[in-house]
Amino acid sequence: MLKVGSLYGPVQEDLRLVEDTFDQIKSVEEFPMLSKMLGQILGGTGKQLRPAIALLAGKFGDYRTELHVPLAASIELLHTATLVHDDVIDASPSRRGRPTANELFNNSAAVMLGDYMFAHAADLIARTDNTAVVRLFAKTIMKIASGELHQDMSAYDYGQDTMAYFGRIEGKTASLFATSAEGGAMVARCSGGEREALRSYGLNIGMAFQVVDDILDFAGDEDEMGKPIGSDLMQGTLTLPSLLLMERHPKDNPVKKAFRTKKPRSEHVAEAVYMVLNSDILNEVYDVARDFRDRALQALAPLPAGAARTALEDIGEYVLKRRS
Amino acid sequence: MLKVGSLYGPVQEDLRLVEDTFDQIKSVEEFPMLSKMLGQILGGTGKQLRPAIALLAGKFGDYRTELHVPLAASIELLHTATLVHDDVIDASPSRRGRPTANELFNNSAAVMLGDYMFAHAADLIARTDNTAVVRLFAKTIMKIASGELHQDMSAYDYGQDTMAYFGRIEGKTASLFATSAEGGAMVARCSGGEREALRSYGLNIGMAFQVVDDILDFAGDEDEMGKPIGSDLMQGTLTLPSLLLMERHPKDNPVKKAFRTKKPRSEHVAEAVYMVLNSDILNEVYDVARDFRDRALQALAPLPAGAARTALEDIGEYVLKRRS
Repeated sequence: MLKVGSLYGPVQEDLRLVEDTFDQIKSVEEFPMLSKMLGQILGGTGKQLRPAIALLAGKFGDYRTELHVPLAASIELLHTATLVHDDVIDASPSRRGRPTANELFNNSAAVMLGDYMFAHAADLIARTDNTAVVRLFAKTIMKIASGELHQDMSAYDYGQDTMAYFGRIEGKTASLFATSAEGGAMVARCSGGEREALRSYGLNIGMAFQVVDDILDFAGDEDEMGKPIGSDLMQGTLTLPSLLLMERHPKDNPVKKAFRTKKPRSEHVAEAVYMVLNSDILNEVYDVARDFRDRALQALAPLPAGAARTALEDIGEYVLKRRS
Repeated sequence: MLKVGSLYGPVQEDLRLVEDTFDQIKSVEEFPMLSKMLGQILGGTGKQLRPAIALLAGKFGDYRTELHVPLAASIELLHTATLVHDDVIDASPSRRGRPTANELFNNSAAVMLGDYMFAHAADLIARTDNTAVVRLFAKTIMKIASGELHQDMSAYDYGQDTMAYFGRIEGKTASLFATSAEGGAMVARCSGGEREALRSYGLNIGMAFQVVDDILDFAGDEDEMGKPIGSDLMQGTLTLPSLLLMERHPKDNPVKKAFRTKKPRSEHVAEAVYMVLNSDILNEVYDVARDFRDRALQALAPLPAGAARTALEDIGEYVLKRRS
């Protein structure tokens, strides 16, 4: 597996400051219970892809540690807050092998904890002293929340097409990647062109990231992922592999069988996974992910070469190769 | 009953612009489902106390409609978002006689709808182009969320004292009133002294408001309130009337009986309500509310007399006299 840390060359040190900010967030002195809850939820150091992208984007302009570090920390906190609420909604007991907030505490506490984290993220973003950046992030969360609502409403609807799928993953995943890159560029007062290039990079990397995620739901390592294969289908979520399976077998396929009753039976999900794995579907989906990655790299073309651009390119490679 | 609209003399017209902003919030063209949901949740025009206070506070400085109206709208939206999540947490089917979001849709949709509203509120606040105001509101939501967590964790704990009660209602209610007044003053670039005076007004009015709320849970009109008498006790929440009841009957009282099993029986709650209503407890609690109101008016003393100050004083009277 690719080592992530080494990817982030020019911002590796500032990513450590992002972690320090997380340690500060966890220590809510006036309320030890909240402190303990945050410690349990913010405990696992993730891949920090989004904060790294925000910091790297800043390197193309007037990079300022004292503004970029709170921005990057706020992005990771926002992302984690959306996961906390997602897990309540999906009633997930674990994520990446660790118990979720709703499992550790209860649904009510998880909703409030997520709200607290959203508000704290807003406070961090405001430290950039740039209300345009605050509005960019606010609009992104609006997009993510309305995307989630849309996904919720369209669960078990097997009449969706690939266009709807791409719209959905743009809302739920790619938009925050795009905003991470654009936010980093805005705080660094990059030009309009640089900002647009970095936003396009983030958007396409985010699309590639989610498409790979959807491959891993069929072909990933259950232990590394911390969730069973076929989880999306069990929850009524159509992803690109299952859409292609339906396209190839329009008359009779296990996805329709699984979704018809809104209570997927595991034998139908297992059959769908088996059929996908015994076809070239995942190769085709992987080509789609590579295509998004390529578009991300193309977007970087107008930007000056150097350590920051190389790191962003390496992230593209990592996103394609990751196994969990 | 006091007519609210006439209270708000100098800001009555701008409160109509706040309602127009709400109408814009409801029309999310790219997602008609969300639009419909917002329409159902933002449909009832409430008393608009918090936005009125924010606008009136602005009248003591450089009042700017184009900044104060989004601020006031964001406050009402934030307040409504916290109620949407509260109702999920308390599994409340109705609020003020109208079905809640969790009842109309489901818990998942209500969580996401609340998140969407929080984010939209952040976008509105950022339109003030003042990151200090954004941070003030972010910190207030952190306080409200951690206060809710605290209330959740201390439910059915009959060992709490009145100090804990005052801390709790400051977090869950008074802090947003304080921030409404302070935010309005900040956007109007009031002096530090004016800002402090208005914050203190808001804080004390908010305390009076919540104490009266807690009286109405014993003595209000069930139809006007849209919820049954004794709801707080049924949910394990100790308020000032029940705390005083426990103080007067330390050995044997129905509150302890109700809370001991964490499943209050309605006869114990009914007994507690009966005992409170047949004592002078509510008079004593009412004196506490009046005391907070008086402190709110004292805080206004250094500010110039005029229509805005009169309106803020009238709000104090309304908060004490309201019946629902």
